[in-house]
Amino acid sequence: MSREDRFIKACRGDQPDCTPVWFMRQAGRYLKEYRAVRAKVSFLTLCKTPDLAAEVTMQPVDILGVDAAILFSDILVVPEAMGMHLVLDDAGPQFPEPLRGPADARRLHVPDPERELRYVLDAIRLIRKQLAGKVPLIGFCGAPWTLAAYMIEGHTSRSFERAKAALLADEAFAHDLLTRISDALTSYLQAQLDTGADALQIFDSWAGALAPSDYARLGAPYIAQVLQGLRRDRKQPVIVFGVETGELLGQLAATGADVVGVDWRVPLDEARGRVGPAAALQGNLDPASLFLPAPAIEARVRRVLEEARRARGGHVFNLGHGILPATPVENAKLAVELVHRGLPAR
Amino acid sequence: MSREDRFIKACRGDQPDCTPVWFMRQAGRYLKEYRAVRAKVSFLTLCKTPDLAAEVTMQPVDILGVDAAILFSDILVVPEAMGMHLVLDDAGPQFPEPLRGPADARRLHVPDPERELRYVLDAIRLIRKQLAGKVPLIGFCGAPWTLAAYMIEGHTSRSFERAKAALLADEAFAHDLLTRISDALTSYLQAQLDTGADALQIFDSWAGALAPSDYARLGAPYIAQVLQGLRRDRKQPVIVFGVETGELLGQLAATGADVVGVDWRVPLDEARGRVGPAAALQGNLDPASLFLPAPAIEARVRRVLEEARRARGGHVFNLGHGILPATPVENAKLAVELVHRGLPAR
Repeated sequence: MSREDRFIKACRGDQPDCTPVWFMRQAGRYLKEYRAVRAKVSFLTLCKTPDLAAEVTMQPVDILGVDAAILFSDILVVPEAMGMHLVLDDAGPQFPEPLRGPADARRLHVPDPERELRYVLDAIRLIRKQLAGKVPLIGFCGAPWTLAAYMIEGHTSRSFERAKAALLADEAFAHDLLTRISDALTSYLQAQLDTGADALQIFDSWAGALAPSDYARLGAPYIAQVLQGLRRDRKQPVIVFGVETGELLGQLAATGADVVGVDWRVPLDEARGRVGPAAALQGNLDPASLFLPAPAIEARVRRVLEEARRARGGHVFNLGHGILPATPVENAKLAVELVHRGLPAR
Repeated sequence: MSREDRFIKACRGDQPDCTPVWFMRQAGRYLKEYRAVRAKVSFLTLCKTPDLAAEVTMQPVDILGVDAAILFSDILVVPEAMGMHLVLDDAGPQFPEPLRGPADARRLHVPDPERELRYVLDAIRLIRKQLAGKVPLIGFCGAPWTLAAYMIEGHTSRSFERAKAALLADEAFAHDLLTRISDALTSYLQAQLDTGADALQIFDSWAGALAPSDYARLGAPYIAQVLQGLRRDRKQPVIVFGVETGELLGQLAATGADVVGVDWRVPLDEARGRVGPAAALQGNLDPASLFLPAPAIEARVRRVLEEARRARGGHVFNLGHGILPATPVENAKLAVELVHRGLPAR
């Protein structure tokens, strides 16, 4: 069976030959091959240069032997294409002119992906050629709430009080902004699928900043809206992932996601009760586990596989969050091998 | 009934005249009276100057009308007293010489609170006099895992991989370090009680960085050890609080805490099922709620009170995390009034 079948089958809840594995941020700084490319160009230039984006997308497929590639890009290229000035530097991403209210939101437009985000689609075309069917390609975007939070705060935050205050105090503003973002994401993801992405992941990085009752207003409904707007077939699964989502897993599943990503705080068998029986689960090794000695990594990979077996249904192995920049590459390779080896037969 | 009875009764699960309320970090930057004191001295000098620490401790009691005072101090004064060099400046707390392994841990000592943390006890003595029984005084410390994480990382972190790797890879080191810290905390908290603290809160700020199975090794057992070491009577309750603890609430309750603090991610009625019937609950309004217009604040305070009523048992109203530095004071006052007014009679 090809590595391609493995990932898509698991997403659909079918039985693959072994558990598929990929890592969030697998194209990243822990790889010396990635650092060599980044030494030549800025992060944003890398995102916008299709042959370089394709090059770093391919690196972990070859080096680690993961079962899926994920497009190298950034979730904030969409707000930029909508009309916001984006700065990505060592201080982290920033919008120097954050949204201040409804009038600012009305100035945003829904970009035409083939024109304003063409560098992403060109990268997908290149990657598809280079992959030559070896493993599937995952496209992605940020979720509406997470993008809106960045666009209002202007940068990352521990508490997001500015974004929460703006959106929770003014329902019309919240609905207008989140709908504009959702429309932009729908056409962006559709273009990714049409160009050749085999699967999609929606990253709601700041989901866990919201109480469940607020996520039910600002978060989940707009992810559902994006999913409903996509024309896709059953072989093009969508993964929805957020951080600190213990109390939000049911809402994430109800968006219509084929796969719900789980961070390392909730064991997968516990997550199954909250997600329900329909969706596959993705996760959820603590990224810090890859800093431990080999026997401890083995014990921890095995625990996740055991919890996934108890959870039943499809399982895509992943970390519970992005791979950390100082991760030893040999430990990431080891984890891939261990997942492929699987649990001993019962 | 006095404001003093209110808080202690709720902690014990008894029925007070109304729900008591205080705010984590209520002595802080959102108060202009606090900023006036801080303009004169550094944060660490403020911690170490008993009359100034007492002054800022008293401010929210008078200004907001909260039902408990909490000692103004910092959780990192204990590692400093154990022998570590602490720098507290605008870049956040730092240990320029973090712990690198077992030998560094063996150089730490268990401080004598009356000698090496005397400024804290002197502050408690002053505050007791100034409070004159108006409201109880809460003493506090950081939890062993949170302090160990700071001591190994050297500063705050998003992922704490260095601390996790060090402690999870070497059980003997972990046990030695966490036991030393627990011993130091036990004698520190005992001294706070003996000097006049009416209640205690243990802050496990980084609890949520650990998966439940790791928290069961590095987190909860050492809090339990501290609690077991304290000589106190039923009128001196201990609150245990952590952030992102949705999956850890049962472990926090099992430490022997009288009150379990809950962040805003888990509704209190849901938390009750995880905590069990014995402990009172503290929380859990999203701190960002205090940036909303008055009617929205009222709706949100009411929701917490309703969830607490459904949860049954004792309830101390609080935010789900520390009050944010830009919080409008009038909104904090409004929340206190609304909690005291309570839900309409059924």
